[in-house]
Amino acid sequence: MHEPTGLEVRGVLETCLYAEELEASAGFYERVLRLRAVSRLEGRHVFFRCGSGMFLLFDPNATQTDGGEVPPHGARGPGHVAFAVGAAELGSWRVHLEREGVPVEADVTWPSGGTSLYLRDPAGNSVELTTPTIWSIPEEDGLIGRPEADP
Amino acid sequence: MHEPTGLEVRGVLETCLYAEELEASAGFYERVLRLRAVSRLEGRHVFFRCGSGMFLLFDPNATQTDGGEVPPHGARGPGHVAFAVGAAELGSWRVHLEREGVPVEADVTWPSGGTSLYLRDPAGNSVELTTPTIWSIPEEDGLIGRPEADP
Repeated sequence: MHEPTGLEVRGVLETCLYAEELEASAGFYERVLRLRAVSRLEGRHVFFRCGSGMFLLFDPNATQTDGGEVPPHGARGPGHVAFAVGAAELGSWRVHLEREGVPVEADVTWPSGGTSLYLRDPAGNSVELTTPTIWSIPEEDGLIGRPEADP
Repeated sequence: MHEPTGLEVRGVLETCLYAEELEASAGFYERVLRLRAVSRLEGRHVFFRCGSGMFLLFDPNATQTDGGEVPPHGARGPGHVAFAVGAAELGSWRVHLEREGVPVEADVTWPSGGTSLYLRDPAGNSVELTTPTIWSIPEEDGLIGRPEADP
């Protein structure tokens, strides 16, 4: 039934979360997660470049009633995202989070290897920092701009 | 304030959406988007490998009350995700979607180049198929398994 052979999705390009207090949450992603904002529309969205894709933060009040070419969307309640970090940097992340005053809600070492730190953004979304190896994904996959400090 | 220099998130590892009718939506991602399910827990989640990351589909009724090591999460209402597809394959995707009986809610060609097809999954989430070039991201970035049919 499927054709042509080889038709496939290549990856996730846009990952979205929602925050009614848009600037407070955007500040969290900029300051705490150190993401780079590349587009802002006040009261509607802040878009971040992240690795080989985009992380999009929306105010659902705006996107649910948008009109225009883009179909409406907008979720409520705590969503979830996991960001990949290098295993060698987990200790530095813990120090950084403590300095930023961001509590680690859970610090999980998985039986099969790898570690996850769970935080909350100001909107209540569950934000995970984790090592890609938890999914048997090499650390090098899908990266741009490896940290300079890396060996 | 920030240290050590070079501490950075490397990319999005897990992108999540929610669906109360979990299997209906999982079937959409398997059949229509041809994602490969790699983990299933009946009534809670279906996890898909997608490019250099993971796409996770959860029943929010399960994840909001989970207990265990992983902090609770779970959103309601239409979320959004965009999947990267090759520009040369857009025509084949349109044919495939029509054969699968999936309406294209919007078919947008952006002024700066690139095209987006917007669909709905059975849970009502807004699902976009688009060319990474809309974000000035090269098609090759973050890919695994380029389609065999590609030149």
